[in-house]
Amino acid sequence: MNERSSFTIGEEASLTKVFTLNEVYEFARISDDTNPVHVDPEYASKTYFKTQIVHGILVSGLISAVLGTCLPGPGAIYLTQNLRFCAPVYPGEAITARVKVTDWDDVKGRVILLTDALNQDGQTVITGEAKLVMSAFIHKD
Amino acid sequence: MNERSSFTIGEEASLTKVFTLNEVYEFARISDDTNPVHVDPEYASKTYFKTQIVHGILVSGLISAVLGTCLPGPGAIYLTQNLRFCAPVYPGEAITARVKVTDWDDVKGRVILLTDALNQDGQTVITGEAKLVMSAFIHKD
Amino acid sequence: MNERSSFTIGEEASLTKVFTLNEVYEFARISDDTNPVHVDPEYASKTYFKTQIVHGILVSGLISAVLGTCLPGPGAIYLTQNLRFCAPVYPGEAITARVKVTDWDDVKGRVILLTDALNQDGQTVITGEAKLVMSAFIHKD
Amino acid sequence: MNERSSFTIGEEASLTKVFTLNEVYEFARISDDTNPVHVDPEYASKTYFKTQIVHGILVSGLISAVLGTCLPGPGAIYLTQNLRFCAPVYPGEAITARVKVTDWDDVKGRVILLTDALNQDGQTVITGEAKLVMSAFIHKD
Repeated sequence: MNERSSFTIGEEASLTKVFTLNEVYEFARISDDTNPVHVDPEYASKTYFKTQIVHGILVSGLISAVLGTCLPGPGAIYLTQNLRFCAPVYPGEAITARVKVTDWDDVKGRVILLTDALNQDGQTVITGEAKLVMSAFIHKD
Repeated sequence: MNERSSFTIGEEASLTKVFTLNEVYEFARISDDTNPVHVDPEYASKTYFKTQIVHGILVSGLISAVLGTCLPGPGAIYLTQNLRFCAPVYPGEAITARVKVTDWDDVKGRVILLTDALNQDGQTVITGEAKLVMSAFIHKD
Repeated sequence: MNERSSFTIGEEASLTKVFTLNEVYEFARISDDTNPVHVDPEYASKTYFKTQIVHGILVSGLISAVLGTCLPGPGAIYLTQNLRFCAPVYPGEAITARVKVTDWDDVKGRVILLTDALNQDGQTVITGEAKLVMSAFIHKD
Repeated sequence: MNERSSFTIGEEASLTKVFTLNEVYEFARISDDTNPVHVDPEYASKTYFKTQIVHGILVSGLISAVLGTCLPGPGAIYLTQNLRFCAPVYPGEAITARVKVTDWDDVKGRVILLTDALNQDGQTVITGEAKLVMSAFIHKD
């Protein structure tokens, strides 16, 4: 066990990755989310977006990645995550997920963070807020 | 284009699937979420949960699957999704994601649904609410 | 084409909807099934059921809807459907159709599922079994 | 009440109607069965069938129509219906549904019939068997 046990309001972290079309198909397979706006090029070509879009929940996974590997980091367990999907993400786009601590309860071991994601043009694609608890604190509840 | 253009309050849909340990590793790879509570058996054995747990966001993907394939179905585009993670999901558990229409705006083409997920023992693992817009209505915004 | 190409035994899906009296009349019109137990209130009032009942085949349409939109989902083609009508469905009742994978042949692309439908009181109104083939596999036959 | 109370083995009846593309869309709407093989011309063009096909359950509605209006006729209540879908039905095809009494139980008021449907070329599109009970006999059960 090597999880952090203290956080400071204002701490930030981020991760950037490109979501490939192949990853969209992999996520469709493991989640069963085969909505044609994601996996059917013909169908997608008829929509407002003109082309396939990445699953919003897959992009949210990059927020979860920042939370689980950077800040609060290993041992962080999700309690809540609110998500607002502001703009589509297209396969091949480089997405940056960012988190920023807004509250830390050192008795309950709970961290609240603003969470968002931006594309390579700086456009916000997801906003929201997350609450997590550090696993070492769970038995204290 | 074959998306639905009318919904009734009270309509429900659900999907059930088993999340395997292998799918946890695949999701870690495509999302970069390598939080050791999910992918490190040694680390996980030291936590409150004693064993690896499935990513909350991966489980949320099954909610997205019901929304995107059953109700509202193909063409549904996420606007918001609130998630409360109530209990851990372990690899091998059969999870049922359920959605229920609570509001339908036939001018804006927007659907609001209660969303939750349960394990095979009937225990709630996720609750929340989602708002989606049917892609055929987007040009009207 | 965005149909699934793999299924797991035990996967489940369901859809719930209310069948309105108006839909009974629409189905009578498009199927020519004007049996007075469905469309004639006077006649129906004299029967054991005392009131009009929804066509069993229309209710079966909701099973077909789960099969064709959720599981196995888009691209699924009916081979067989056995139906046992266990209880009447009255206009205005909320019916839930459920399907559960019992067999998957990954060479022939065939899925066998238990299918049933329940009313809002949990009473079974239809039971049966369905066999479907995924359209992408048909050329292999 | 004007239902028949006696049947003879070997009695036959049939109805013929053309299923229009418009009726396919209406059935999709009232049943929620929006499988794209039925309602999405783009998707359907990529399948084995090359074009949209009529819902098997909608075609089965014509069998239900013969049963409910011709033989056994008004008052007949479905107990079981087995369906084998042997060939696709395309919008615009003229389908003939046929039924033939194979058993009549004058104590229980139950009729068993062979049921099938053919297209205008004489090709069988559905085969199966139905069991019905006359509503006047239900109180005797």
